[in-house]
Amino acid sequence: MPRTGRRPGTGGTEAKILAAARANFARVGYDGGTIRAIAAEAGVDPSLILHYFGSKEGVFRAAVAFPVDPAKFVPQLLAPGLDDLGERLVRFFLDTWDSPAGRPLLALIRSVVASEDAAALLREFITREVLGRLAMALKLDQPRLRASLAASTLIGMAMLRYVIKLEPLASAKPEVVAGWLGPTVQRYLTDPSVSPRSRRSRR
Amino acid sequence: MPRTGRRPGTGGTEAKILAAARANFARVGYDGGTIRAIAAEAGVDPSLILHYFGSKEGVFRAAVAFPVDPAKFVPQLLAPGLDDLGERLVRFFLDTWDSPAGRPLLALIRSVVASEDAAALLREFITREVLGRLAMALKLDQPRLRASLAASTLIGMAMLRYVIKLEPLASAKPEVVAGWLGPTVQRYLTDPSVSPRSRRSRR
Repeated sequence: MPRTGRRPGTGGTEAKILAAARANFARVGYDGGTIRAIAAEAGVDPSLILHYFGSKEGVFRAAVAFPVDPAKFVPQLLAPGLDDLGERLVRFFLDTWDSPAGRPLLALIRSVVASEDAAALLREFITREVLGRLAMALKLDQPRLRASLAASTLIGMAMLRYVIKLEPLASAKPEVVAGWLGPTVQRYLTDPSVSPRSRRSRR
Repeated sequence: MPRTGRRPGTGGTEAKILAAARANFARVGYDGGTIRAIAAEAGVDPSLILHYFGSKEGVFRAAVAFPVDPAKFVPQLLAPGLDDLGERLVRFFLDTWDSPAGRPLLALIRSVVASEDAAALLREFITREVLGRLAMALKLDQPRLRASLAASTLIGMAMLRYVIKLEPLASAKPEVVAGWLGPTVQRYLTDPSVSPRSRRSRR
């Protein structure tokens, strides 16, 4: 089991690994980062990183305080099938923001907006681990574009609701927000008729 | 005619007015700000502010480098009627970002995300001058919620396309983006069936 929390007595080693991970990922990106290079930089055995964080993805998530595990939540959201996937995604996103686990998300958005390097790093991670997993499950043309449109729906909501705090969105109940955004995300992910390419080919 | 650019010889006065405007708006918000108070703070006659910037809205736009004039562009977008309004809004938004006028927008997003005060200030301005004007033209229930959902669609696109630069959205042609987002914004603004309240009342 990957463990991303600190324990008394292991904080020194974990902190050293996370500092090395941040430096390594910042230099070579998420895709270029390796457990081996992070271990060398931290002066520890690679197996120790796997013991603490489970995987490269796990050590990255801990290093940037990404609050949820795409290897778990994407398959969970996809498991019931594509019906109502849009609404499930929106509800999961809002539930995460509103939970204690969501607390680092505002800082994460701030760092991504403030720094091109942070944006590039998170972009690689999101593209591969979140949107790549989602796109693989879609059975239509342009799966990567569809997944990124779904992501734009969620990040736009987060910006107005949690960052800019624009009313009436900021105070709207999660079920009301999901009722509006769910069909949008569903359309991007599953409706063949909204694809401009499909529309053209039908003419 | 409001003039927001600098001219040789007037830079000192304009800069003094803008500094006073920033201080005044930061202290009392957009809604609470007045030409009179800004003039007093800058030590100039209120008529000079109107001469340079046309209105409170104009001096605010110049102070925060907001690149477009909602008093002009919202009526222009609404003029042809509500048909295809969603696509027109998306196209206008992308055209603005991609034009020289859009250059301050990234800095504006950065300041809003970095600072709660900047977020509060822009929130008041957007709510009153942009979304308020848009909501007034809608003929359905929950016009303010509908307008803010449209805004969330646009800001989400801007975040992924221009800030995080996520592919394939970052390189997608404006007409492709408008082809996907236009119907979403159109649905939020004009479709009575997407309102959760309407849906409930039909059951």
